[in-house]
Amino acid sequence: MEKNIIYLDNNATTKVDEKVLEKMMPFFCERYGNPSSMHSFGGNVSKDIAVAREQIADFLGAENPYEITFTGCGTESANIAIKGALEINKNKKHIITTKVEHPCVLNTYKWLEKRGYTVSYLNVNSEGELLVDELKDLVTQDTALVSIMWANNETGVVFDVERASQIIKSINPQTFFFVDGVQAAGKIPMNVQKANIDMLGISGHKFHSPKGIGALYVRKGILLPPLILGGHQEKGLRPGTENVTGIIGMGEASQLAKNALVDENTRVKSLRDELEKGIVKQVFNARINCSKAPRVPNTTNISFEYIEGELMLLHFADAGICASSGSACTSGSLEPSHVLKAMGIPFTCLHGSIRFSLSRFTTKEEIDYALKTIPPIIEKINGYSPYQKELRELKELRNF
Amino acid sequence: MEKNIIYLDNNATTKVDEKVLEKMMPFFCERYGNPSSMHSFGGNVSKDIAVAREQIADFLGAENPYEITFTGCGTESANIAIKGALEINKNKKHIITTKVEHPCVLNTYKWLEKRGYTVSYLNVNSEGELLVDELKDLVTQDTALVSIMWANNETGVVFDVERASQIIKSINPQTFFFVDGVQAAGKIPMNVQKANIDMLGISGHKFHSPKGIGALYVRKGILLPPLILGGHQEKGLRPGTENVTGIIGMGEASQLAKNALVDENTRVKSLRDELEKGIVKQVFNARINCSKAPRVPNTTNISFEYIEGELMLLHFADAGICASSGSACTSGSLEPSHVLKAMGIPFTCLHGSIRFSLSRFTTKEEIDYALKTIPPIIEKINGYSPYQKELRELKELRNF
Repeated sequence: MEKNIIYLDNNATTKVDEKVLEKMMPFFCERYGNPSSMHSFGGNVSKDIAVAREQIADFLGAENPYEITFTGCGTESANIAIKGALEINKNKKHIITTKVEHPCVLNTYKWLEKRGYTVSYLNVNSEGELLVDELKDLVTQDTALVSIMWANNETGVVFDVERASQIIKSINPQTFFFVDGVQAAGKIPMNVQKANIDMLGISGHKFHSPKGIGALYVRKGILLPPLILGGHQEKGLRPGTENVTGIIGMGEASQLAKNALVDENTRVKSLRDELEKGIVKQVFNARINCSKAPRVPNTTNISFEYIEGELMLLHFADAGICASSGSACTSGSLEPSHVLKAMGIPFTCLHGSIRFSLSRFTTKEEIDYALKTIPPIIEKINGYSPYQKELRELKELRNF
Repeated sequence: MEKNIIYLDNNATTKVDEKVLEKMMPFFCERYGNPSSMHSFGGNVSKDIAVAREQIADFLGAENPYEITFTGCGTESANIAIKGALEINKNKKHIITTKVEHPCVLNTYKWLEKRGYTVSYLNVNSEGELLVDELKDLVTQDTALVSIMWANNETGVVFDVERASQIIKSINPQTFFFVDGVQAAGKIPMNVQKANIDMLGISGHKFHSPKGIGALYVRKGILLPPLILGGHQEKGLRPGTENVTGIIGMGEASQLAKNALVDENTRVKSLRDELEKGIVKQVFNARINCSKAPRVPNTTNISFEYIEGELMLLHFADAGICASSGSACTSGSLEPSHVLKAMGIPFTCLHGSIRFSLSRFTTKEEIDYALKTIPPIIEKINGYSPYQKELRELKELRNF
């Protein structure tokens, strides 16, 4: 690791666990055969892939390993699921999602909207909680698909996908239910059978496996057509020579993540809570978003009123602290977060919201350092803000 | 490497070069940031991706690195190119390919055929050479796309894509020309500008980078729509967090492959030739396919008349020799090779054809071992053949 990096951007991507890399290593230069080969030098690799498939099935609570398909990333998983489900439900032209999805779902839905689909968007409340009951009025016999993320990437709020499924299926059992599980994986227990999910996508690099590997759960009996065509790999649903090292790595990472769930929900959670409390205590214009909602344990989204997010991020980075505003997949745009906008966060907070996301590798020392470093940075930036009068009033209001 | 493995299946997949792995290593557990991040810990990784993009552009002779898009595999590259080109040429309903393409092109074409496209298939002669001049009668104003592989995976025959492009563009400059470059990459010099190619796909794991990474060249000015939708990565043509280690590895591998082209075309070629000569000399029922055609230097396809390919492969594997019959992507099917069938190879040879494919890691000692090991295996299998009379006649005919 580079010197003095306090990495609090684990919702963007994570460090590959060294134990994961260790499992992958033999498959680069030694056991490099093609799993489709007739010779056992290659063919035996398919047994290692089978183990990884079982590991992912276990991680997600799937009934059968064959319900797991390996893909190139979470975005590809979502695209295969959404477009494939609509191919099956060809005559239904209504689809539902939320206002706060990741771009891989939102942009696919926008694309579908231009191609004749009617889209309904579920709302969130000011705490970022999904108004799941809106489904009761939205799902009809014409609804082909509902896509809901399990946990939001920016706020960390966990959505009640089990209840969503109950409502959807009670109105229309033919409606497919896809869950973007990318930000839930490794943070909260997931069980696709218990939650009655038809399809679920995850991305390896969000839970300490390498970038470039994802998985898609498709419930037994749903015969999705592939998005890309080619050979027989992944039962034809995702052809192309398998990303062997990625698959082996993600399999191992899923088990490490599963075993670390307790740590994530105790030690990591308490570090997150400590970070929040410390910042709110020291910074008068900080407010924690979604603090009353059920959240994944590693994420906090903090608005610093009347100041600019990107300026903060640059100062944090100078001090070695990595965090982010919004999603890495929407970066480069100057638009404020669509997630916070959907929550009705006031304009004065919208541009100054920062996401800190921890991992099982985050230490107490790192959080202590962040709590020593962040408040003076904010104080300095407050000095640059054009809203001095407002900041003074806010300070008085909060009794500083 | 496992003990005593003579790996002659490099057209199926290759060993990752240790120098490639070395370049990748820091990006797993140290420089693991997301290239889209605001902080330089992640953001700086995009500079390494830019270097890899330049390396691939140089490798393919592209004018500009921005013409290179990273994908998950060669199959995905072909699918993005083919489906994207047809999206642009929406009103043209005729497409052309060859009878000997890889399943990623052939299966995509079959899928398109079911969706209203008329497909013309170019023939090959008995030496496996593409009858490029057939294009003169096939390309029309309604031709949306022509797909031709640069080198055939099974026979190694190199197709004259430059001449194909001349014919296509002289008849219809609006016809897109996609080249599957997967089996040419690292074996012969490639220059997309000189060959006047619109789009070209490659797969990293065929030239000593890891599995799970590919690239697509798209000539400047062609605005392909993406196959999967999501974030801004790869200019939106292939969204999803970048497979950083794969990209860095493939970039490095491309330069190593470029520098090894001389070795490939001298030392490796002469080892291949030695293997062919030695087998033909010792095995009366062996015949080299396509020996008179221009071929990539590492590949030989040998028919052993009146015997079964899979049985040979299993015996070879027992002796530590890895080879294959047909493509790994079509394995599992009992159909004889569509490539050899298209060449009109006699039925007596069709089921007994083996591809040996070398690499820059193949040694003289390995070929010597193969030449000592293979002939007695064939002799033994000849004994099992139900065609004893025919084998005896063949032996007399060839003066053994």
